[in-house]
Amino acid sequence: MSYFDAASAAPLHPVARQALLASLDDGWADPARLHREGRRARMLLDAAREAAAEAVGCRADEVVFTASGTRAVHSGTAGALAGRRRVGRHLIVSAVEHSCVLHSADVFEADGGTVTRVGVGRTGAVDPSAFAAALRPDTALACLQSANHEVGTVQPVAEVAEACRAAGVPLLVDAAQSLGWGPVAGDWSLLAASAHKWGGPAGAGLLVVRKGVRFAAQGPVDERESGRAPGFENLPAIVAAVASLRAVRAEAAQEAVRLRELTERIRARVPALVPDVEVVGDPRHRLPGIVTFSCLYVDGEALLHELDRAGFSVSSGSSCTSSTLTPSHVLKAMGVLSEGNVRVSLAPGTAEADVERFFQVLPGAVAGVREKLGAPAPAPATAVRAAELLVDALGRRCPVPVIELARVIGDVPVGGTVRVLSDDEAARLDIPAWCEMRGQEYAGEEPAERGTAYVVRRVN
Amino acid sequence: MSYFDAASAAPLHPVARQALLASLDDGWADPARLHREGRRARMLLDAAREAAAEAVGCRADEVVFTASGTRAVHSGTAGALAGRRRVGRHLIVSAVEHSCVLHSADVFEADGGTVTRVGVGRTGAVDPSAFAAALRPDTALACLQSANHEVGTVQPVAEVAEACRAAGVPLLVDAAQSLGWGPVAGDWSLLAASAHKWGGPAGAGLLVVRKGVRFAAQGPVDERESGRAPGFENLPAIVAAVASLRAVRAEAAQEAVRLRELTERIRARVPALVPDVEVVGDPRHRLPGIVTFSCLYVDGEALLHELDRAGFSVSSGSSCTSSTLTPSHVLKAMGVLSEGNVRVSLAPGTAEADVERFFQVLPGAVAGVREKLGAPAPAPATAVRAAELLVDALGRRCPVPVIELARVIGDVPVGGTVRVLSDDEAARLDIPAWCEMRGQEYAGEEPAERGTAYVVRRVN
Repeated sequence: MSYFDAASAAPLHPVARQALLASLDDGWADPARLHREGRRARMLLDAAREAAAEAVGCRADEVVFTASGTRAVHSGTAGALAGRRRVGRHLIVSAVEHSCVLHSADVFEADGGTVTRVGVGRTGAVDPSAFAAALRPDTALACLQSANHEVGTVQPVAEVAEACRAAGVPLLVDAAQSLGWGPVAGDWSLLAASAHKWGGPAGAGLLVVRKGVRFAAQGPVDERESGRAPGFENLPAIVAAVASLRAVRAEAAQEAVRLRELTERIRARVPALVPDVEVVGDPRHRLPGIVTFSCLYVDGEALLHELDRAGFSVSSGSSCTSSTLTPSHVLKAMGVLSEGNVRVSLAPGTAEADVERFFQVLPGAVAGVREKLGAPAPAPATAVRAAELLVDALGRRCPVPVIELARVIGDVPVGGTVRVLSDDEAARLDIPAWCEMRGQEYAGEEPAERGTAYVVRRVN
Repeated sequence: MSYFDAASAAPLHPVARQALLASLDDGWADPARLHREGRRARMLLDAAREAAAEAVGCRADEVVFTASGTRAVHSGTAGALAGRRRVGRHLIVSAVEHSCVLHSADVFEADGGTVTRVGVGRTGAVDPSAFAAALRPDTALACLQSANHEVGTVQPVAEVAEACRAAGVPLLVDAAQSLGWGPVAGDWSLLAASAHKWGGPAGAGLLVVRKGVRFAAQGPVDERESGRAPGFENLPAIVAAVASLRAVRAEAAQEAVRLRELTERIRARVPALVPDVEVVGDPRHRLPGIVTFSCLYVDGEALLHELDRAGFSVSSGSSCTSSTLTPSHVLKAMGVLSEGNVRVSLAPGTAEADVERFFQVLPGAVAGVREKLGAPAPAPATAVRAAELLVDALGRRCPVPVIELARVIGDVPVGGTVRVLSDDEAARLDIPAWCEMRGQEYAGEEPAERGTAYVVRRVN
């Protein structure tokens, strides 16, 4: 098996396993107690906090251990928003944040707050000046990820932090995907991270609140973690999380070079091996281990299963792989193709041979799915019949609407139009993306009795 | 070392350790993913949920895994209160709940809700009819622990649940201390528990929400745990928690008899071995492993350190062992002596020899602390001088005010009074408790320029 889904959860680092085992023996007691087992637990906790602070680049008393990265983000945003309630109730997030940030924003909005969601370009990066332009006198908090979890694009955190600092607005950085690679540069105010993304265990998140940041923890709290994360500390997980962070950091510089070369190879060779593929994300400002591409005329879930059968575990932002049947909000915000989407995320230590084997397997897997779906052969030459065609794809799911469009585009003359009637949310993203890939003109959408009509003008 | 603090955190059960290790290998992936590592994690999660449901006596889809017992209580109370917001905003809790329940109540109160805190008798048990009398038409939720964490008293949950059911009010049971011993009887609606109390690992709590209970999860949620506990599941901890719950249950009947005999021995022998001791909690309706007593004229923290040096780890509800310098709210609600308080809580498997050794060590430890504090020798016979005495104990902490009182009570004639001036919160509890133990009359308190004057009339 080749596990190419490290961005979801990385396998446990050997150092994490070792530290976890050791602290199951030494760190099971309550660190708040005065007896020797409690004092031993307290010492482990204090040492872990010091080490975490060193890895993050902050003071030990700024570190709060939480039960997960999600919890760190939820508590961090809620506490910072409440701490600055008098300033105002405006929150800025990028449109491509992890869902836990967006869920926090939704709750804030439902509670009467105002949220600005700053868009991104086609590479997935925010424009620092666009982000800065969203700052208002009543902005209580801004959130920006250090790097995107779906396409690997690195965000301009330092520049955005500078703009926030100038405006007196705290910036919370979700560093879940990048903290294993290095500290987050720039003058941020809060930081959240999750151990299982860097090879630590589940059950440990990190929230850093810089001294001087106004913060009012929400909900019931207790005396643990400076009143910012209630409940019995999961000390074995904390110790293992910090030990593995130090371990992956020690290997980071070397592994970054190696993985970047492997993902670069995927970026270059996949489009050469498989027709009609769009590689997405920033080609240069990106995490070492993540590369994402989408395959026209392919059902993401079917491709994922084909790859799984062939021994590759990947994830996908296609609509068919989500519980809500909508494409990933990241791909949507980038305006790129979402069908047949594959995210390859390599853990440190991934063997070159596994990536080479992926090149052998992928073309057949994609071709197999396309064949089953009856996808059009590349560039068919058909006789022209009518200047306008209607494709009824109602009730059909991604990637069928695009396949139907591609099947008939040659049937209208250059200048003619095809209307694709679809009630699938992915079509809104994928039909314009297909037009861009194929050099056809996307003429916009029209409301229809059922679903939406997507109008495409044949240009070539 | 003899670890007698299992009610804070029990050492990891061997089965928990084994299950944790196995699921570190098989359960590190994201159970929401479609690839084989994800499917394997999902299978483990589903199996753990089934097993947990069986142990609790509920349906699998009623079980939510949380990051801690505290989190289960916080989420459970918030969700149930919000789910019944239309009914009203009244909450009932017992006065001796775990602090996580009381913190939830405080937050609810600060947010405009009304809270009734039902008192307890001297044994620590609520009176079911007093609890029932607190039910109102606008009561949204009632909370009662299955058994008390500080004194081991078992609460009349089944009777209270019946009264709640009759009134249409859901009852949340904090079963943290008892779930390892058996399912909670009665027709409760919600249940919370914590794995590290029964020998499971840290990082796993249990929230059960019966079908039909109106529940609206608060704060940001995601698709995990039926939208009731956001964040990446800590699968190794969950698997280990459930495996150890089954393991301790298999041994429960036998261990309950054995531990009950050991704690019974402590209840009987400690007052015989150590003068001026009050054993607290219900002598019959109690957990097998917990016994609590308070020693007059003793500083709880000093005694705890003496016992620690002698190889015994216990905890204490004395004011000097709390960060806020107030006695345990449980001892306060019971109206019993809080000074020199010791909770002995035995984990299953505790050796009889350890308890016997405790009897050898305790008298010397208590005597040592008393000597250092200059505690009065039992019943000194002194010449009578004045009918009224004032003891200025301002700025002196527990147990000094009681020691000063005991030193001078013989100096006034029978019928005379001693006024103890104190600004220590523990005195309010401990001076009346001393009077009861000594057969003297507590005549009430009077405001003073600084602190409070506690008036004691000599009767014998």
